[in-house]
Amino acid sequence: MPSRFELANAIRALSMDAVQKAKSGHPGAPMGMADIAEVLWNDYLKHNPADPKWPDRDRFVLSNGHGSMLLYSLLHLTGYELSLEELQSFRQLHAKTAGHPEYGYAPGVETTTGPLGQGLANAVGMALAEKTLAAQFNRPGHTIVDHTTWCFVGDGCLMEGISHEVASLAGTQKLGKLITFYDDNGISIDGEVEGWFTDDTAKRFEAYGWHVVPNVDGHKPEEIQAAIELARSHDDRPSLIICKTVIGFGAPNKQGKEECHGAPLGEEEVAAARQQLGWPHAPFHIPEEIYRGWDASEVGRTRQDDWQARFDRYAEAYPELAREFQRRVQCKLPVEFTSEALIEKAQQAGETIASRKASLNCLNELGPQLPELLGGSADLAPSNLTFWDGAKAITPETPDGNYLHYGVREFGMGAIMNGIVLHGGFIPYGATFLIFMEYMRNAVRMAALMGKRAIYVFTHDSIGLGEDGPTHQPIEQLTSLRSTPNLSTWRPCDAAETAAAWDAALKRNSGPTALVLSRQNLPHQARTKQQLASIQRGGYVLRDCEGTPALILIATGSEVALAMDAAAELEAQGHAVRVVSMPSTYRFNGQEAEYRESVLPKAVTKRLAIEAGHRDYWHKYVGLEGRIIGMRTYGESAPAGDLFKHFGFTVENVVQQATELLEG
Amino acid sequence: MPSRFELANAIRALSMDAVQKAKSGHPGAPMGMADIAEVLWNDYLKHNPADPKWPDRDRFVLSNGHGSMLLYSLLHLTGYELSLEELQSFRQLHAKTAGHPEYGYAPGVETTTGPLGQGLANAVGMALAEKTLAAQFNRPGHTIVDHTTWCFVGDGCLMEGISHEVASLAGTQKLGKLITFYDDNGISIDGEVEGWFTDDTAKRFEAYGWHVVPNVDGHKPEEIQAAIELARSHDDRPSLIICKTVIGFGAPNKQGKEECHGAPLGEEEVAAARQQLGWPHAPFHIPEEIYRGWDASEVGRTRQDDWQARFDRYAEAYPELAREFQRRVQCKLPVEFTSEALIEKAQQAGETIASRKASLNCLNELGPQLPELLGGSADLAPSNLTFWDGAKAITPETPDGNYLHYGVREFGMGAIMNGIVLHGGFIPYGATFLIFMEYMRNAVRMAALMGKRAIYVFTHDSIGLGEDGPTHQPIEQLTSLRSTPNLSTWRPCDAAETAAAWDAALKRNSGPTALVLSRQNLPHQARTKQQLASIQRGGYVLRDCEGTPALILIATGSEVALAMDAAAELEAQGHAVRVVSMPSTYRFNGQEAEYRESVLPKAVTKRLAIEAGHRDYWHKYVGLEGRIIGMRTYGESAPAGDLFKHFGFTVENVVQQATELLEG
Repeated sequence: MPSRFELANAIRALSMDAVQKAKSGHPGAPMGMADIAEVLWNDYLKHNPADPKWPDRDRFVLSNGHGSMLLYSLLHLTGYELSLEELQSFRQLHAKTAGHPEYGYAPGVETTTGPLGQGLANAVGMALAEKTLAAQFNRPGHTIVDHTTWCFVGDGCLMEGISHEVASLAGTQKLGKLITFYDDNGISIDGEVEGWFTDDTAKRFEAYGWHVVPNVDGHKPEEIQAAIELARSHDDRPSLIICKTVIGFGAPNKQGKEECHGAPLGEEEVAAARQQLGWPHAPFHIPEEIYRGWDASEVGRTRQDDWQARFDRYAEAYPELAREFQRRVQCKLPVEFTSEALIEKAQQAGETIASRKASLNCLNELGPQLPELLGGSADLAPSNLTFWDGAKAITPETPDGNYLHYGVREFGMGAIMNGIVLHGGFIPYGATFLIFMEYMRNAVRMAALMGKRAIYVFTHDSIGLGEDGPTHQPIEQLTSLRSTPNLSTWRPCDAAETAAAWDAALKRNSGPTALVLSRQNLPHQARTKQQLASIQRGGYVLRDCEGTPALILIATGSEVALAMDAAAELEAQGHAVRVVSMPSTYRFNGQEAEYRESVLPKAVTKRLAIEAGHRDYWHKYVGLEGRIIGMRTYGESAPAGDLFKHFGFTVENVVQQATELLEG
Repeated sequence: MPSRFELANAIRALSMDAVQKAKSGHPGAPMGMADIAEVLWNDYLKHNPADPKWPDRDRFVLSNGHGSMLLYSLLHLTGYELSLEELQSFRQLHAKTAGHPEYGYAPGVETTTGPLGQGLANAVGMALAEKTLAAQFNRPGHTIVDHTTWCFVGDGCLMEGISHEVASLAGTQKLGKLITFYDDNGISIDGEVEGWFTDDTAKRFEAYGWHVVPNVDGHKPEEIQAAIELARSHDDRPSLIICKTVIGFGAPNKQGKEECHGAPLGEEEVAAARQQLGWPHAPFHIPEEIYRGWDASEVGRTRQDDWQARFDRYAEAYPELAREFQRRVQCKLPVEFTSEALIEKAQQAGETIASRKASLNCLNELGPQLPELLGGSADLAPSNLTFWDGAKAITPETPDGNYLHYGVREFGMGAIMNGIVLHGGFIPYGATFLIFMEYMRNAVRMAALMGKRAIYVFTHDSIGLGEDGPTHQPIEQLTSLRSTPNLSTWRPCDAAETAAAWDAALKRNSGPTALVLSRQNLPHQARTKQQLASIQRGGYVLRDCEGTPALILIATGSEVALAMDAAAELEAQGHAVRVVSMPSTYRFNGQEAEYRESVLPKAVTKRLAIEAGHRDYWHKYVGLEGRIIGMRTYGESAPAGDLFKHFGFTVENVVQQATELLEG
């Protein structure tokens, strides 16, 4: 039987060899954390390599994702479908072993990590999801949800601001089944961290209400074990285990230094490390007995079988709940679910309301049908209008709720939502003002990159926000969202389009959706049945003229009513004008060419786009010959009505610009 | 003589009345913090209302900027040029009294605050600037830089992640002259914060190495005074004074509740508050004796006169230093400064190097000429190549340095840079990978909104980053930067354009500049003298053909060489092709129409834009008839060369697309 040290050295060898072969990568963290990982994965982690989607598995998150070879080594060694060939293709095109762990590439990768700090946030989201799902589904004598979230973090993660946001919230929520290991190796890219990072991290996390195990020797298995036992015994609070480690442990000349962090060790040092570690095997050769020491297939199968038996008993006792559980963890909407009715209802109601209010109306209809909706706001619930009638705050006392008061933590919210949706069982929606999307921007990007269904409710979507002024008025943010691959963005013009946007967001299980909503009231638009159905195409003719239009007005959100009024006036002046409402460019771009041509015929080059956002984006639809009424500057602090006038969003200006175009 | 309470009530009355008149705003924070502000401004703050730009004034930052009426009241009462009429126009178009404090609107507003947490970061930047400037200019017996930075923060600021980043760095840097007051009122927008914010804030800040004065009654002047005295006596560390306050203090029915946070109190409650506070005066009426109690004109003048006398003695002893000091605080470049030479030198050297390396070469030339350059990187110095030969880390032991190791704190870096540039005396430049611009995005926006000269060095600018994969490869980020009003963005194609970009960034004192640089080598481009000069126009003809071009290739950065190679091949095939290098669309858009037409003639509609970034932006230059070779999806993890091929950035593909266009 190989020693623990030998087992850990398999990680070290695979990591340094793969990085060396790729001529690129980060050997330091895997070599430094190998002993911790060995104890955790061999003695504690509940998983089954044969079924990486087993709902009750423990979650493992490598927040310091640059140490990806640590994770790939673990997956390979314990028996996941990740071959030696894949490890040898580390960081090559089409390999599963990307430079940073990418969700959906290799089995067992629970989340995409790389942008520092977000892995910890994902882990907090997973632990929250576990606790909430357990509270919603477990029954006395029937525990079907009961797993731990384990997270590795480095110095970088803990320097990032998001670590504060999510650790603070995890403490408030008393997430006792979140156990985090801090790789306290004293090194970051600029060198020894003492020049820029002198926090008393133990004290800091205690201030958040965490249980902290300080001063653990991260190279002594017995100390690691003892720390884990301590952490598990404190299940009323999240735990931080602070492990003193040597970065690049085993590389005799480079360990403990920045040099081994983010570059191959070099052939010579790799050879020296082999000697130092007593690892005589060839690159990528793992002796059989080492494989046997790591293999988790059997214990994994046994554990899952045991769970399955428990679940079967649960299903007998609570057949409906069991079916509902299965539906939830498979991310399926209820078969009887339909949100089309919602759209028709909104159309028929014909209300002139703010789209944020229309969104609340949707939530009040959707909430009771979709218990998987897990809402929240970054301390703007009364403004975002996301706390619907059936919303119930999740707290340590009421873990079975469906709404998170995230506090003023936008980025934390976004990345926690990613953890929640990755965990499964929930559709998270989270809200803030559109402008503060900027604080959480990279979490939105990560949801889009991972293709996960998170829904963002971004209200106060333009200068229409009014008096709070330019710091609070989005200008370029719509462009930023629309340019984000795999993000579906909607800016509805009234309650019916808002309902359609919610419908689309819920049915889109391949990526996130941003709902961009107004603070101010938006007039209802009349629609035929066909027009109503066309909203889902992202852009459609809302008002048409006889024959070929001389001019097309394209607008979104609050500017659609303006375009309609201007079109009426232009028509009165004898012009053939079409109005296209374009709530979702993402959806419109995805339509077949024929449909797009029917809405925006190539022959009609006189086009005027109107949107109270940055103007440049609209060249995509009006080209060089059209015009754009949009923003070029920041907004100002004033009542919304004054601002729309000031910045040219008036019927008068639209008519004038249109006339110039028509006469040009 | 009015009592302290009466003086403070003047703030409360002005704040609630102005919010009431505007029918919009935040009375809670000003009413809650009025007593603290009264003690600070009347007993401690060193300022001169007649000269808001006095270099040695104390800096006051209202990080909880929604309480703007607190600041406007203070400025008005102490004698700044901010009239009662301005207060009565609170939150109206063209008023100086914007909804949140906007830099450049009212005198005495040191920074734009609103997006929570950033004010604290600005304050950290100001305190850092003070300390560094003092170390660089003070001489034994001659102290010309010696002021304190005071900052007010609310719960929201302390929940935001950025507060962690900057408080941690402030602790490490031992910024003893930074004194922060925490308005611990227990209320945020969602209600009582105990549901989402349970930090032991005193302990948290102690963990950062701060001196903390806990449990101060924020309504008792003597307690506030004692706390300030304590804070000032601990000048080896930043101080946090935790003040227990009642939000909306004085409004009998709404104080202590969320209701008074962000909405007018209502006529009735305003009247009741008048009664409760014993403030019988009409709205906006301040009795003369209250004005006298607040007036800081005389003491301010005396203080500045005293400083001026000291400065005059300094100027006698150190005439050159004094001149240099004046130059620095006036943000003027040295008269003899010229960076044109840099551009020519780079052109003549003709090196094929990465633009990040070309940037380092620039810094090595510029650094010795510009001691005001205050560099830094968010823990990527060896990758960003920003630590030039004369760079010297700023530490508690070497406060006279010129380089900050910001740690892994992108957002903190951006907002600290804003504080540094606002303080004056420095041109900050800060670096990270382009993708991590997202973490600091809103600080970049704030620099642009304030029109301040911050310079961002964003390296690893595309899929050219290679193996680190999609989380590290920017796609939509260039679009985001280019759509940001008043931000000048450059993506140079070789060393000469990189030098021109640095030149432009330094000479632009009306806003920030983003330098977007490659990881990989970029071939040198040949240029005539006129072409070299034209780089500053942002877009210019790098390669032309005989007569009117049949096709224009437009490219930036690493894709320029590709366009040049493709043009050569197309020319060999008999096509008249022009290549436009467009390093800065911001600069190009600012050129007169004639020049733009000369580069991109309207008549030439066959245009092909090539950039390894999100494609949509380029419709602005190629319209609907042109083509774009750009990114539609995220990148992948692989060697850069493989990725460029994979995503179609090859001569072959450019030639093919061009040929289709030409034949179309």
